[in-house]
Amino acid sequence: MKLKRPASLEALLEALQKLPSIGRRSAERLASHLLTAPQAEVEGLAAAMLKVRATLLPCGTCGHLTENQPCEICSDSQRDDSLLCVIAGEKELYALAEAGVFNGRFHVLGGLISPLKGIGPKRLRLEALHARLQDGAVTELVLALPPTTEGETTAHYLKETVPAGIKLTRLGIGIPLGADLDYLDAGTLDRALQGRQEF
Amino acid sequence: MKLKRPASLEALLEALQKLPSIGRRSAERLASHLLTAPQAEVEGLAAAMLKVRATLLPCGTCGHLTENQPCEICSDSQRDDSLLCVIAGEKELYALAEAGVFNGRFHVLGGLISPLKGIGPKRLRLEALHARLQDGAVTELVLALPPTTEGETTAHYLKETVPAGIKLTRLGIGIPLGADLDYLDAGTLDRALQGRQEF
Repeated sequence: MKLKRPASLEALLEALQKLPSIGRRSAERLASHLLTAPQAEVEGLAAAMLKVRATLLPCGTCGHLTENQPCEICSDSQRDDSLLCVIAGEKELYALAEAGVFNGRFHVLGGLISPLKGIGPKRLRLEALHARLQDGAVTELVLALPPTTEGETTAHYLKETVPAGIKLTRLGIGIPLGADLDYLDAGTLDRALQGRQEF
Repeated sequence: MKLKRPASLEALLEALQKLPSIGRRSAERLASHLLTAPQAEVEGLAAAMLKVRATLLPCGTCGHLTENQPCEICSDSQRDDSLLCVIAGEKELYALAEAGVFNGRFHVLGGLISPLKGIGPKRLRLEALHARLQDGAVTELVLALPPTTEGETTAHYLKETVPAGIKLTRLGIGIPLGADLDYLDAGTLDRALQGRQEF
């Protein structure tokens, strides 16, 4: 009595479930849409996925995925060469660059150290980072890493390996603007209290 | 200062946002994964999307997307020809067929009547449905349509157009098994009370 899904549909469901935060139910909803959407829409999505892979390559300097070498950030003469902001990936780079709040250079690590996931320092763009610190132009390294175990591990690793003489700073931890205090976790409240400032 | 996303990335973000319940933020998360995942994974997903479109075609009888004509449901000799269950799409068909609770035949409408979305009866597989009702084999039409405005509109349209002599039934409305009463909406509670049964 039970209906088996066709092999091609099962293959699509499996491929969709490799995407972040897509479980079986979400995959079924997406597959159902892909089955019934206009053919041009599905072809367009498949082509767009392959095209970003073919056109965007890591910038040889900072690692940001770009159409041009060096990328638009590294080739921007208005930026401050003495400030270098270290981020985990593209998401974080766009978050900071689009907010327009940082006028230095960036360095994309391409991940975070995670013993649990088997990601060691060698998997990250750390050699490239150290190479950028050799000529003495960078005086401050801003660690814009997430306040998670992996972010902390990576920050401590950098603290131990970055050449002396370069100032290391981290993003402040506290209450986000507009947040409801009663929705924040105890850890954040604790750090916000520790970091309280005179008014 | 603001960083513009490359054209190919913007194109991918737009294509992703055409998927159901994928907004800008989810599209960015998906794109970020697609940019950094192994090349084979991205190629596999693109290929799987195109393959379902090429291999699955609507069954000439019931409209279910299938590799074989007629589909495995229409060609199953164990099913009851007198019971025909009308559903909106593939999702609903799999939900019922996988639960193994219905032993009749199915008819996929390919949508629901929706004046708001400009979907009239002619966009649905209604002619094919009426053709299946001609030979008198079907004695009961089970409307397994969602209890929404669009589902109700479609159900009422069917009630007016289905030949006399065919019994029309609908799925019962009430409290789902395991549900917390205090999480249910007033409409459902009202219908469950109206449909109360002697114990």
